[in-house]
Amino acid sequence: MFLRGNAVVGQSGGPTAAINATLAGVIMGALDAGDGAIDKIYGMRNGIEGLLEEKLIDLGSIFSEKSMFDDLALTPAAALGSCRRKLPSDYSDAIYSRIFSVFSEYNIRYFFYIGGNDSMDTVLKLSGYADKIGYDIRIIGVPKTIDNDLEGTDHTPGYGSAAKYVAITVKELLRDCSVYTLKAVTIVEIMGRDAGWLTCASALPKLSGGDMPDLIYLPERPFDMEEFLNSVANAFERHPNILVAVSEGIRFKDGRYVGESAQSGNVDVFGHRYLAGTGKVLESAVKERFGCKARSVELSLTQRCAAHVASYTDISESVETGRRAVGFALEGKSGCMVSVEREQDRSLYSIRYNAKNVGEIANKVKRVPDEFINESGNGVTDACIEYMRPLIIGEVSPLYENGLPRHIVIG
Amino acid sequence: MFLRGNAVVGQSGGPTAAINATLAGVIMGALDAGDGAIDKIYGMRNGIEGLLEEKLIDLGSIFSEKSMFDDLALTPAAALGSCRRKLPSDYSDAIYSRIFSVFSEYNIRYFFYIGGNDSMDTVLKLSGYADKIGYDIRIIGVPKTIDNDLEGTDHTPGYGSAAKYVAITVKELLRDCSVYTLKAVTIVEIMGRDAGWLTCASALPKLSGGDMPDLIYLPERPFDMEEFLNSVANAFERHPNILVAVSEGIRFKDGRYVGESAQSGNVDVFGHRYLAGTGKVLESAVKERFGCKARSVELSLTQRCAAHVASYTDISESVETGRRAVGFALEGKSGCMVSVEREQDRSLYSIRYNAKNVGEIANKVKRVPDEFINESGNGVTDACIEYMRPLIIGEVSPLYENGLPRHIVIG
Repeated sequence: MFLRGNAVVGQSGGPTAAINATLAGVIMGALDAGDGAIDKIYGMRNGIEGLLEEKLIDLGSIFSEKSMFDDLALTPAAALGSCRRKLPSDYSDAIYSRIFSVFSEYNIRYFFYIGGNDSMDTVLKLSGYADKIGYDIRIIGVPKTIDNDLEGTDHTPGYGSAAKYVAITVKELLRDCSVYTLKAVTIVEIMGRDAGWLTCASALPKLSGGDMPDLIYLPERPFDMEEFLNSVANAFERHPNILVAVSEGIRFKDGRYVGESAQSGNVDVFGHRYLAGTGKVLESAVKERFGCKARSVELSLTQRCAAHVASYTDISESVETGRRAVGFALEGKSGCMVSVEREQDRSLYSIRYNAKNVGEIANKVKRVPDEFINESGNGVTDACIEYMRPLIIGEVSPLYENGLPRHIVIG
Repeated sequence: MFLRGNAVVGQSGGPTAAINATLAGVIMGALDAGDGAIDKIYGMRNGIEGLLEEKLIDLGSIFSEKSMFDDLALTPAAALGSCRRKLPSDYSDAIYSRIFSVFSEYNIRYFFYIGGNDSMDTVLKLSGYADKIGYDIRIIGVPKTIDNDLEGTDHTPGYGSAAKYVAITVKELLRDCSVYTLKAVTIVEIMGRDAGWLTCASALPKLSGGDMPDLIYLPERPFDMEEFLNSVANAFERHPNILVAVSEGIRFKDGRYVGESAQSGNVDVFGHRYLAGTGKVLESAVKERFGCKARSVELSLTQRCAAHVASYTDISESVETGRRAVGFALEGKSGCMVSVEREQDRSLYSIRYNAKNVGEIANKVKRVPDEFINESGNGVTDACIEYMRPLIIGEVSPLYENGLPRHIVIG
């Protein structure tokens, strides 16, 4: 059933606090495969780019001690390095023959790619090319994204930890903002270009103390400045300290990003525009209308790498997702992504792992559904909070050295 | 020796992760005073403002269980509320007679004010007025500030926790920034208007893994844009991912704030200008010179309220500082601030508490000394790191509820 040969694993796209937990799972899965199925597990440096340059490292020789996996699982960001390279649609492009000549040279029969939306596109294309040329290889996508916007899975590894960081930080900011009696609006800008999942997490403090942001805006609903300012005015009737959580990617009805006036106009290699300044735009609007203190806090990069406060549920699921990727490959699956299904008939949170056809996942975006957003479009429902709650449960215990969590760096 | 009567405690100035630990210490100290020295310990809402409006709450009746102090000590921001009110220099102002009529009405004989520089000014003025009118009261300042810029003390409660948060976050950002091979500059903007203590903490990752920011800029040295860009160019010769830590308050040689071009021009009640945008100004300069990816991350409010990752050393010292405030007052001290002295003859970190004349402390700023800054003015020395190291040692264990740390809210 399984192929005899070597495996390679890579990481792609933006870093998360859990992507190395998944890497640890893949390495452990490969090393434990047994029966000589997988001889060596290579890591590619900076994703597909390192593969092209044959920057492959023998992970089995590096991870010689079990305890190293514990450190790896709690080290944020991609330990193998990452890239944002998109493969061309045209299979006659020389890059494909180059990739497969490296596969052949290293006898690679298992390919694991840990990433988000764009990385699943790579998995899809490489699977297609392998079929086309008849190269026998198992190609598996392993999900990770703080954005939680992948189709075909209940949630994505990395989301729970980012959500926990957002929820804790918003809870702390709620306390911070409550200390003065002066009227003030604090706007917290949270990552999320097309989907508001991470911004939804700002509502989680409701389950621990009762406080939550007064207003929450997601990219799933068009943003109306006048309605926003009226909602702030209403909130001021309840208390002087308003906290607003907002996704970076909210847009006006005409499709323009709210942050657009303050953005650089740059685009990344996938054509996505860099956004910055959504919070600043709202801050200015509030100052102008109310003449009160207003400030914006952009959680920025910290929300995707705050491994010190990762969710135990997320980290353990991320490790298991990596292990299962190897398991599915050994079973003969290819062109698949490991997905997570929530057992709906259980009162206690419990999940099952599946392998989903990556063609149904790549290049799609799963948005926050209607039933998770309130009628006014400025808050989330209890159903949304109940969906998120189990994903942030549990705390990790990194080892501390001189007061700081220990990280592992692959030299 | 001690006066018979009631005590009142207030919090003032910006919130920190440890200011409630100090409040817990004051309350415990007052409740344990014994012999009927302190009958009641009142909390004033929003500092001196609540005192003027007689918004006083009986803390002894609220903190009826010992375990509540554990939650309070790990709740960020001022649980009693805060204010930024500065008392006038003119003792004939009606505010003084109003304050002392409230003291008299409630038989207040002990006044504890937890705050920073500006709060020590309040302690100084109230002590002076009490002497002037011959009202028998013990007035003690209890330090807190993430800025660590108070004279007369080795360090300030609140600094260790903020420093730990900054150090952990920078360590995580160092990992995050290392994943791509493209040239990129990440600028981390850290709080600190006049003193760079908190920005120094960005160097602490050196002691845990070896990485640290390539460049560190403090307000203690004039900032030169050309020298900065040349230093970035030099750093690019070593690696593609540059991380720069910078205090919000850095200024050019002519005294202008670097962030000035991007600031709102607003001033707070003490006449301090709000700064924002130092990181953005450097980001633009880097983009223009190098045409590379550049981004800035402003740690903003999160660095002063991240109680989930507080330093155990800081929290336990903060509690003790509150207790000692009560102890010094009972001994007859007044017009003093509790200070911390590091035992220099010990190889292991150890401190002593003193009561320092607040006249020597108020309205002064302790800056980072020359021996803590490198010759080029773009980094810190090992002596600086060794000074900070013990202050971030130890982790706290807040109780988690639904995945989030429990906070106590005084209703």
